[in-house]
Amino acid sequence: MREVAILGVGLNKKWGELWRMSGRDIFVEAALNAMDDANVDHIDSMYVGCMTSGLLIGQEHIGCLMADYLGSGPIPATRVESACASGGAAFRQGFIEVASGLNDFVLVGGIEKMTDTNDDEAIDALYAAEDVLYEAYQGVTLAGLYALMARVHMQKFGTTSLQMAHVAAKNHKHGAMNPVAMYPFVITAEDVLKSMLVADPLHMLDCAAATDGAAAVLLCPLETARKISKKPIVKVLGSGQGSSAIALHARKDMAVLDSVVKAAEAAYKMAGKTPEDIHLAEVHDSFTIAEIMALESLGLVEPGKGGPASESGMTALGGKIPVNTSGGLKSKGHPLGATGVAQVVEVALQLRGAAGARQVKNARVGLTQNLGGTGGSCVVHIFEAV
Amino acid sequence: MREVAILGVGLNKKWGELWRMSGRDIFVEAALNAMDDANVDHIDSMYVGCMTSGLLIGQEHIGCLMADYLGSGPIPATRVESACASGGAAFRQGFIEVASGLNDFVLVGGIEKMTDTNDDEAIDALYAAEDVLYEAYQGVTLAGLYALMARVHMQKFGTTSLQMAHVAAKNHKHGAMNPVAMYPFVITAEDVLKSMLVADPLHMLDCAAATDGAAAVLLCPLETARKISKKPIVKVLGSGQGSSAIALHARKDMAVLDSVVKAAEAAYKMAGKTPEDIHLAEVHDSFTIAEIMALESLGLVEPGKGGPASESGMTALGGKIPVNTSGGLKSKGHPLGATGVAQVVEVALQLRGAAGARQVKNARVGLTQNLGGTGGSCVVHIFEAV
Repeated sequence: MREVAILGVGLNKKWGELWRMSGRDIFVEAALNAMDDANVDHIDSMYVGCMTSGLLIGQEHIGCLMADYLGSGPIPATRVESACASGGAAFRQGFIEVASGLNDFVLVGGIEKMTDTNDDEAIDALYAAEDVLYEAYQGVTLAGLYALMARVHMQKFGTTSLQMAHVAAKNHKHGAMNPVAMYPFVITAEDVLKSMLVADPLHMLDCAAATDGAAAVLLCPLETARKISKKPIVKVLGSGQGSSAIALHARKDMAVLDSVVKAAEAAYKMAGKTPEDIHLAEVHDSFTIAEIMALESLGLVEPGKGGPASESGMTALGGKIPVNTSGGLKSKGHPLGATGVAQVVEVALQLRGAAGARQVKNARVGLTQNLGGTGGSCVVHIFEAV
Repeated sequence: MREVAILGVGLNKKWGELWRMSGRDIFVEAALNAMDDANVDHIDSMYVGCMTSGLLIGQEHIGCLMADYLGSGPIPATRVESACASGGAAFRQGFIEVASGLNDFVLVGGIEKMTDTNDDEAIDALYAAEDVLYEAYQGVTLAGLYALMARVHMQKFGTTSLQMAHVAAKNHKHGAMNPVAMYPFVITAEDVLKSMLVADPLHMLDCAAATDGAAAVLLCPLETARKISKKPIVKVLGSGQGSSAIALHARKDMAVLDSVVKAAEAAYKMAGKTPEDIHLAEVHDSFTIAEIMALESLGLVEPGKGGPASESGMTALGGKIPVNTSGGLKSKGHPLGATGVAQVVEVALQLRGAAGARQVKNARVGLTQNLGGTGGSCVVHIFEAV
């Protein structure tokens, strides 16, 4: 397999309720930003990560649609869907394609247009990430399922609502420094605990918001990047993907994310790294408990120590291992398909030393973890500044 | 890139209105048949081609869902969507993954569950393959768009309704020999012309039927296949994918499928073959005019000669280049995501000499062509018995 590098990264200007832009407008903005950043005007192939375009805007077949609107037809353009992990899964396909030698300049984009609808339709669309026959038909929402996982985690490890609240407060503190973020303001752990209960024990401020947004990354062979890039080079060191029982009731242990364990194992192995080598991580905080469980399943902390680590500041900027310096899904917003790609954008900026006020000092190795649904699928990537 | 071979192929027993089976049941049946055929009990990774699971059964995230129900978790499992070309696009991802060296045993499945709904919902779902903002919102169905393409083709080349009808009659003649086919009976060209007009000039019997079905193919490195397979070995010789303007109005020439031209060019180049080398082909006959245009855009006949070729018997079993020996989408049925994978199944059986009554004599090189929507995306593969 060829070595692969990140040549360019881009987001659309601002995530949020973008009622004046269509999904294709938002995607093209992010993709052009990534091509500008890479200083190339041509791509060989494209992947688009997206979950809900069919259910929320009635549009499937968005691989070729986005290539068309980007002006990049007639290139191969493929849409990848893995619920909330669609962006990470699309990134992995781009990585595999460049690694295979088939094509050199491969653009991976993620897009979700979620606000041109009403709450009922949005909830219906999110149900589709669950096991529809055995979970959604019983009426349990994603927040409900995460609440169940949180309860198990609390019972097993003594995790507290305050610890979860600290995850949200920390991510908002980071996100307040990110101009793209949908909610770029500071909140306290107390604010989280005082906010409305959505699904006990999860409060409204424990939950990330569905929104509109896009992200894009341009990949190429490492050798090519060394020749043409004028920016610090970020290598894709490892790629791992895993799955697990999609329904909660079919899992051995609801307090462990099997798909994360499997994806991380594969990514660490390919990268030749261990959790101790990771300087910063972007993890999937769709709910605060998800970040806590991710820290544990990735091996960044011991099982059961995700809560205390979050409360202690270990995962904040300036801590031992800063997590979600971008603001995470919580503060930045969670346009599903864009999320996994935007995680890569943040880590690439950090490893280039170009993250501005959010910069992690001496960051050389970073990790991204993108989760689908309640963990039926997971994609993990590891990157290094080379 | 490593050389890649087909180790096993499988379909579910019968395509049609499978009201007693869920999508996951149908998928697992086909996948197990492919694993049985390959004589392996383990896979490393999986791709699932599917378009409408969100819109028609409310279920996205079906990569991990299918891996889960197949009992193959926690492997990487990714859903690929490219409208009616979802199966072909998934197959290409499987090919790239094995070629890259990342994994050895990669299962590619295609599934669509389309009959657990009503006509309105099914039509809405198919709209999603078009450019929704500029085509579907005007109320023009896929049949309507293909009717426009047919009119242009008739005007430009003198193609007739009778020539189109011969495509359907030929494919039903083939399909009558295929036990999996949804409509395994013979029809005449006259029957087609006498059937109800759906969108002038297309009659009901010019159109393939949306249905339930699944297909699966197990890929591995050619070297591995040589070691462990007791069946004739089929090598994936070339893979090509192309896109074009998704909306008809944005194309230079509505009588040419640009995405097919691009995909075929890439596949022939990788395979080191020309159209003259192809012994049989499975092409995308969602409408009879689509097969005629595919023959031309693939270079199997001169531009404008697709109609006469179909009428002359050149593309029938026993003709110069048999096309759609499986019965095609017309007779076999068109479960969107399954279609592109089932095309590979048919060509593999033919190249193994295992196609029974439908066998093409001395078939050594075969081609598959899978189209998305009205041609926004296309995937072409070329195979050889080695």
